[in-house]
Amino acid sequence: MHASEMAEDFPVIGVEDDAWTAVTQLAENRLPGLVVTDEAGQPLSILPTSQVLRVLVPTYVQDDPSLAGVLTESMADRMCERLRGKKVRALLRDDMPELAVVRGDDTIIEVAAVMARLRCPLAVVMRGQERVGVITASRLLQLALKPAPE
Amino acid sequence: MHASEMAEDFPVIGVEDDAWTAVTQLAENRLPGLVVTDEAGQPLSILPTSQVLRVLVPTYVQDDPSLAGVLTESMADRMCERLRGKKVRALLRDDMPELAVVRGDDTIIEVAAVMARLRCPLAVVMRGQERVGVITASRLLQLALKPAPE
Repeated sequence: MHASEMAEDFPVIGVEDDAWTAVTQLAENRLPGLVVTDEAGQPLSILPTSQVLRVLVPTYVQDDPSLAGVLTESMADRMCERLRGKKVRALLRDDMPELAVVRGDDTIIEVAAVMARLRCPLAVVMRGQERVGVITASRLLQLALKPAPE
Repeated sequence: MHASEMAEDFPVIGVEDDAWTAVTQLAENRLPGLVVTDEAGQPLSILPTSQVLRVLVPTYVQDDPSLAGVLTESMADRMCERLRGKKVRALLRDDMPELAVVRGDDTIIEVAAVMARLRCPLAVVMRGQERVGVITASRLLQLALKPAPE
């Protein structure tokens, strides 16, 4: 089985898109993360949902959560305030995690190897410049466990 | 809203349980990971699905996926062989990631702060020694965005 047959749809957002759109997409669809593409539509990185929380919660509260009491506004108000006018780029880490990118004709073990090396929970499947879809680690395990021959 | 009201069920596995059981649970339910508990049933760490791939694929193939062709057995056979007789403990990294653990009466911002600091995609909610459930980062965002007052 090749990567292009294993690929599924997965939500993608552009690095210049509105940060608020990314956050509502994560929240409403309860996603663990989004694939972020660059201005040319090529896969750039991954935005894990836990990373969004780092942007929303002030560092001094992350260091000492008991200080959360000093924040008088609600989490919703805080999100509006922190994200207003921001792009997706502002949500990414400076040392953004490398995204696993594989080719449509890669085998299941090649895909697993790339995801394993990068500790990346998903791989974007490309055919030339075209994005075919995404393979998550759990999808890969599911296919690997299937009794049918590969 | 407090952590105990936000918590949901989430699959948990013991560190002394069979590794094969963990992997089939991840694959069949297409989970991004499992919460791992110690011998006393207390939350210990998280087992991300991508970490399982690191155990299944030899290091030299991770370093150079083009070498995957030398592996003659299927991914399924490889999984059987690599996991036979192993415990969940053998799947964990030596430097296992710290799991976010919060108290049932923690607020949404306190929970967000702990998850953000640890870059952990979920938090286990405890009431004393008892595990109430788990809050994922996307669940937290979803609740934070709800129009109702907290």
